[in-house]
Amino acid sequence: MSNIAILHEEELRAAVDINLETVDCIETAFRTLGTGSVVMPPVLSMHLPDVNGEVDIKTAYIPGFSGFAVKVSPGFFDNPKRGLPSTSGLMIVFSAVTGQVQAVLLDNGYLTDIRTAAAGAVAARSLSRENSAHVAILGTGVQALLQLRALCLVRPIQTATICGRSQEKAEKLAQTASNLLGIKATASSNFEASVSNADIIVTTTPATEPIIKAEWLRPGQHITAMGSDQSNKNELEAACLSRADIYVPDRLSQCRKMGELRAAIEAGAVNDDREIAELGDLLVRDTPARANSNQITIADLTGMGIQDTAIATLALTALRKESVVT
Amino acid sequence: MSNIAILHEEELRAAVDINLETVDCIETAFRTLGTGSVVMPPVLSMHLPDVNGEVDIKTAYIPGFSGFAVKVSPGFFDNPKRGLPSTSGLMIVFSAVTGQVQAVLLDNGYLTDIRTAAAGAVAARSLSRENSAHVAILGTGVQALLQLRALCLVRPIQTATICGRSQEKAEKLAQTASNLLGIKATASSNFEASVSNADIIVTTTPATEPIIKAEWLRPGQHITAMGSDQSNKNELEAACLSRADIYVPDRLSQCRKMGELRAAIEAGAVNDDREIAELGDLLVRDTPARANSNQITIADLTGMGIQDTAIATLALTALRKESVVT
Repeated sequence: MSNIAILHEEELRAAVDINLETVDCIETAFRTLGTGSVVMPPVLSMHLPDVNGEVDIKTAYIPGFSGFAVKVSPGFFDNPKRGLPSTSGLMIVFSAVTGQVQAVLLDNGYLTDIRTAAAGAVAARSLSRENSAHVAILGTGVQALLQLRALCLVRPIQTATICGRSQEKAEKLAQTASNLLGIKATASSNFEASVSNADIIVTTTPATEPIIKAEWLRPGQHITAMGSDQSNKNELEAACLSRADIYVPDRLSQCRKMGELRAAIEAGAVNDDREIAELGDLLVRDTPARANSNQITIADLTGMGIQDTAIATLALTALRKESVVT
Repeated sequence: MSNIAILHEEELRAAVDINLETVDCIETAFRTLGTGSVVMPPVLSMHLPDVNGEVDIKTAYIPGFSGFAVKVSPGFFDNPKRGLPSTSGLMIVFSAVTGQVQAVLLDNGYLTDIRTAAAGAVAARSLSRENSAHVAILGTGVQALLQLRALCLVRPIQTATICGRSQEKAEKLAQTASNLLGIKATASSNFEASVSNADIIVTTTPATEPIIKAEWLRPGQHITAMGSDQSNKNELEAACLSRADIYVPDRLSQCRKMGELRAAIEAGAVNDDREIAELGDLLVRDTPARANSNQITIADLTGMGIQDTAIATLALTALRKESVVT
């Protein structure tokens, strides 16, 4: 027990960031899931109506990774009244050989942000057209910028349109993205035009009602929907899923409960017992996921324990190289 | 995040021990479970056949407790070949008000040992005859002594017989118990005689085949079976459960899967759909659990997240009083 590393956000920020190594690491996790050799139990969810809270626990064992993570994510939704963020939590990393605790990662959600954005890049690299240059980002939070940064790693992005309920936040983010990424990023309050003109659309909002209509979609587009990770969230009109040529969940069983798939099933647009290949399944096939440049593709990302295990292991490996961790 | 306490075994040993305060705290957790106001999801179990391992995650929210614990318990059964213990793990304590991490308890299993023994005392205080004076402890491990210490807090114990596969360990433990508790403790290799002559029997072994036969039982006895906490373990012959006047699981759904109840159901001694009151249910009733001095009672303890939350909160409260934790 004496060698347990207690790592804080600052050290973890120095250890991992959005770059191709991170995207590849997360893709490896998805691929291993696709081979069927991962052990990933369903999310343990504890609902606490007394305190308007919820606690999610995710974990996964990935063969070939030196450790596995257990992530505990409390969401206490009265916290803002107290001047505190709703979400908090931590990850614990265990040796995949001995099961012993290796590290406690007090990351304040940073690693989750990174692994979530990296999954967006994995989805876009697999599903979007290779020449995708125009992006619409719906949402102005932390994920909005991270998803855009991740996309620029895998596709030749030239322009980005940022859409949000707050024009001020959208403009600020567009300015930041332009400076950081050397692309032309602009703010827009016209969701329909922004979506219709994009090659890749990423939804990163906490919406509980659709913010994209099916009639806005154009042939050849790819959508990564990553805002919906609870059973009350929804970003895409149900008809988007039936209109798409390829709909891909990260985890089918989970998307049925809390992804865009849940809302589409409830609306009757998709059968609830339909078997659908997951992103990991597509990645290990010999043929590209996208068959031609006219298909509309949708990736429904709800977040999985394999991503936590992958990013936590990547962070620890980096910190070992730097001798921050023994 | 700056106020997270990282606490090690030594500090936790100084903070909590087996005493009446601990037993009462654990009983409060059981009683609150009995009122129906606890939130306790099923154990998250991850089986890792590749590495001969298993990871169990337990948690529970108990109204009235200042925090809730998440306990991660890896068991990697090839570890002894490496000179390491099979089991390890930790608890994390979160504020029950904000969900934020309060403490990481690197207890090396100490808190689990204490809360498990305390549950034995809770069961015996509810189910055994008040004048129970003679104890048989089956097993010679850490729990054997802790369970005996816990019993001495709630019943007027005068003699204890320690039975184990190793006579040497049994004698050593008997000597320790005699010195520590001021009772007459002796070792015996005669399981049948030891069980038949006892008022209270506690089974604390990793047995996978019964070590107590139903025909050994006598009117008025109480058994606490706490060794079986996995689906391959079994300490009581199935007929013990049908012979008992009162059989009490800690958690019915869990005992059906991994307690003595599992083996009894498999043997056909108990119907698998029988509704059975849990220990918490009995504790909140107006009438004593035991109706007379002739009943045979069995408590089937598999271990629950409420016990972890209760002991972790008790430890933190004690350490706050001592100003070890702010």
